[in-house]
Amino acid sequence: MPIFDFELISRDTTTAARRGSFTTAHGDVLTPAFMPVGTRGTVKGVLPEQLTELRTQVVLANTYHLYLRPGHEIVRDAGGLHAFMNWDGPILTDSGGFQIFSLADTLTLTDDGVSFRSILDGSAHTWTPETNMEIQEALGADIAMVLDVCPPYPAEKQQVADAVARSAAWARRCRDAHARNDQALFGIVQGGVHTDLRLESVQRTVDIGFPGYGIGGYSVGEPHDLMLESLEPVAAALPEDKPRYLMGVGNPTTMLQAIALGVDLFDCVLPTRTARVGTAFSSQGRMNLRNAQYAADFGPLDSTCTCSTCTGYSRAYLRHLVNVKEMLGATLLSVHNLHFLIDLTERARAAVSEGRYGAFLAEWLASPAADDY
Amino acid sequence: MPIFDFELISRDTTTAARRGSFTTAHGDVLTPAFMPVGTRGTVKGVLPEQLTELRTQVVLANTYHLYLRPGHEIVRDAGGLHAFMNWDGPILTDSGGFQIFSLADTLTLTDDGVSFRSILDGSAHTWTPETNMEIQEALGADIAMVLDVCPPYPAEKQQVADAVARSAAWARRCRDAHARNDQALFGIVQGGVHTDLRLESVQRTVDIGFPGYGIGGYSVGEPHDLMLESLEPVAAALPEDKPRYLMGVGNPTTMLQAIALGVDLFDCVLPTRTARVGTAFSSQGRMNLRNAQYAADFGPLDSTCTCSTCTGYSRAYLRHLVNVKEMLGATLLSVHNLHFLIDLTERARAAVSEGRYGAFLAEWLASPAADDY
Repeated sequence: MPIFDFELISRDTTTAARRGSFTTAHGDVLTPAFMPVGTRGTVKGVLPEQLTELRTQVVLANTYHLYLRPGHEIVRDAGGLHAFMNWDGPILTDSGGFQIFSLADTLTLTDDGVSFRSILDGSAHTWTPETNMEIQEALGADIAMVLDVCPPYPAEKQQVADAVARSAAWARRCRDAHARNDQALFGIVQGGVHTDLRLESVQRTVDIGFPGYGIGGYSVGEPHDLMLESLEPVAAALPEDKPRYLMGVGNPTTMLQAIALGVDLFDCVLPTRTARVGTAFSSQGRMNLRNAQYAADFGPLDSTCTCSTCTGYSRAYLRHLVNVKEMLGATLLSVHNLHFLIDLTERARAAVSEGRYGAFLAEWLASPAADDY
Repeated sequence: MPIFDFELISRDTTTAARRGSFTTAHGDVLTPAFMPVGTRGTVKGVLPEQLTELRTQVVLANTYHLYLRPGHEIVRDAGGLHAFMNWDGPILTDSGGFQIFSLADTLTLTDDGVSFRSILDGSAHTWTPETNMEIQEALGADIAMVLDVCPPYPAEKQQVADAVARSAAWARRCRDAHARNDQALFGIVQGGVHTDLRLESVQRTVDIGFPGYGIGGYSVGEPHDLMLESLEPVAAALPEDKPRYLMGVGNPTTMLQAIALGVDLFDCVLPTRTARVGTAFSSQGRMNLRNAQYAADFGPLDSTCTCSTCTGYSRAYLRHLVNVKEMLGATLLSVHNLHFLIDLTERARAAVSEGRYGAFLAEWLASPAADDY
């Protein structure tokens, strides 16, 4: 299969869920897939060999953070992100748009590009679609994302409409500037929670033509129901023969709901971030290991789980590590939480293959695991 | 070979260095050996499978810290430290004496035992030799240490003499109280930097009779030369057919010098503690990875090293992780630093076998690696 061609392997019979695959220079990706986040070129507290053991398919890294430290030239001179971080599997870099626009108070936006100040030292930087492509090509991920304009939530509808128009113009410039043949460039759909703007954004972005599409601008504080409501027509309007990537979303229940709408790719800091505060996903719902109820509980975190944390360590030990602030607690809980999400996508793929995704989702939503997400 | 019997395998021809082995219920230990420190039941930032890969022979854990959190009863109920921390190899617990006596301002010492306040919540605790044995038996390490009295440095000679006498009396009570057949109990020699008191302590402790001897009360701030000077007659006076353990010492140069005096076992937090502040051991001396000189240095930490950090990652990447305070930096540097010390003991064993330990030590002392330790 030619590189980056998305193959639709099977469809669910009762939902829009689908199973697919695409090829990169660093291996195949089976969808639906969850991508662990390695913001600064490391999935926090988790070794590359552990990511392999977890059957991680793609790691996400952040262009904004790597551009500031260590700098994209250093990553390029190291031989690219794969060599730099010792991860030989597929990598996706976001464009950094989301990070820049979340620092709106230091930002100047023009048609040409965006000027911003570093969160680290206040130094001034300007990105255009063209320079952003240079930076992402230097980082050398398998998949790059266009530089987009991310309005906050809530925002005036006109502001969102402007962001859609400017994102489309920038997407075209990104596509024209992007030159690496071994790197796919995905477009990004914006439009907030406004279905008309979302569909306009789909149309404009698809007109340019990309091998995959990000759905951005969610997970910025909008109500969960409103997000799913506006996501449904967006997913349906995107081309069937290209992967669809819901950016920044990865809590288990929303991920499974979005898969039912035909979404293929996800990323989120949630599994590792919650791990670092001592919280584990489980088939019984979230568990806060700081809780004294686990102090003498010698069973595994989740008796249904096959990860190395659940097969090697007790709740009491994990509780002890969290309680005394030992690094290994964050590592072991991160491994478990990542396994939880990756395992969920594997089960979702199996359910799609067997045409029972609707039943799989219904079973999840009725289980204690769906609570409190 | 019966459990805990120390076998002297070979002696160096020009120094007092020796190679030996002893058996525990969790495997054999070849000496000289360096024991990584897992204070709270975890070697900070390092997984048990990484310890195995590093050819770790024994892990040390701290009775004081585990007694306070999570409590020895919880460790006992978990099936002991091996099950609790998922480490199936040999474990040694110190008695906690060193920790208690470093908190001298909250301490009441009598012939019967010692009362102290918790560093965590100020709660009052009393240990006697007998209760300390109960605690260490509950933790269930392969080797326990007697409860000793550790005077500070500097101290009045009379205070050191009193500590020697009281330590001997407590050592006897520990031996009488200790009941676990699958656990060895080592005596501890005190006496500060006073050779006469050290030799008196050797005599008193050996009279009681233990399967191994700790040499305590060093690494408390005394000058390095004074320590080596008083260590020599102590090591020589200890029984040849028992292992000698220099407690709390593990900087590379001192360790190699002590091996030349006939010491067999070492432990130290140095490799993991220095790793957490971004410092690596190397054949060229210590390296501070915070230094900007490594920002674009794509070679390994130490080109002579075979550890997984040196074979997988560049100085530039490690410098980046340290610079942005990513957990993985501490983990990768800890792995390297532990490998450095363990590898050094393996090379020391080979040098003893070949009767060239004197030359091996001289070569080390003339190398850049011996600097600044």
